Amino acid sequence: MKNTKNYSLFSIGELETQKRVELHDNLKLTGAEISINELLKGESVPFVHAHKENEEIYIVLKGNGELYIDGEIIKIKEGDTLRINTKGERCFKASPSSSLRYICVQVKENTLTQFTYDDGIILETKAF
Amino acid sequence: MKNTKNYSLFSIGELETQKRVELHDNLKLTGAEISINELLKGESVPFVHAHKENEEIYIVLKGNGELYIDGEIIKIKEGDTLRINTKGERCFKASPSSSLRYICVQVKENTLTQFTYDDGIILETKAF
Repeated sequence: MKNTKNYSLFSIGELETQKRVELHDNLKLTGAEISINELLKGESVPFVHAHKENEEIYIVLKGNGELYIDGEIIKIKEGDTLRINTKGERCFKASPSSSLRYICVQVKENTLTQFTYDDGIILETKAF
Repeated sequence: MKNTKNYSLFSIGELETQKRVELHDNLKLTGAEISINELLKGESVPFVHAHKENEEIYIVLKGNGELYIDGEIIKIKEGDTLRINTKGERCFKASPSSSLRYICVQVKENTLTQFTYDDGIILETKAF
C-alpha cells in the first residue's frame, strides 16, 4: 500500500485467489466504494437487497450464474455489465458448475456532472 | 442490451477480445463513467492527463506495465488498484512483453456519503 499527495496504490495480488476485497478504505476513495467478489459454485449472496441512495454497477469478470432482480431471474456471464438503481431488489448466485467473479461499484445516484473529454485535461508533458 | 425500470444490462462479450468499452451511455449511468481498456504490448496512452472534478480508480485485471504519475514511474501488475485524484498527472503503458487490461472508474470527488451496510436495505424476500 502506498499513499502520496495525489494517489493511493493497493496491491491485492492475483485476482484468482481473492474471495472479496473492498477498496474504499484501502484506497481512501471519496466518490465510490468498489468491491471485487467471488461466489463459489452454487453459492449465492445470502440476502436480497436494495439501496437508499447508491446506484450499483456490476461487471462480470469470469464464470456465469444468475441475477434475481425484482422477482425475475436472468442468466449472467463473463462480459455482462449491469446498472441497478436504488430500488432494484437484487441477489446474485453462481452457477452450480462455475464460480462467479464480479466487480461491484457503488456510487451516489445523479452525482456525475461531466466525464472523459469534458472533465479531462490533456497535458503537454511527455510520460515515456 | 436491456433496459427496465430498475436496471440496464449490456453484454460486451469475452473480455479478452475487447480493446476499449465505455459503459456510461450503454448502461445509462448517473454516478460514474466506467471503461474497460486494453493496451497492447509496449503501447501507451498517447497523452498525460489530469481531471477537473473527477477521481479515477484503476483496477489492473491482467498483464503488467507502468504508470507515469507526477514525474514518477511505477511498475503495475494484475491485482494492483489505484485511486488518482483530480490533480494527478497520469499516463499508462503496457510492458513490451505483455498487454495490460484495466478498468477505469470516473466519479466526482467527495460525492459518496454512505455505502454498503449504511446504504443497503436488506429485504425479507427469498431469491433462490
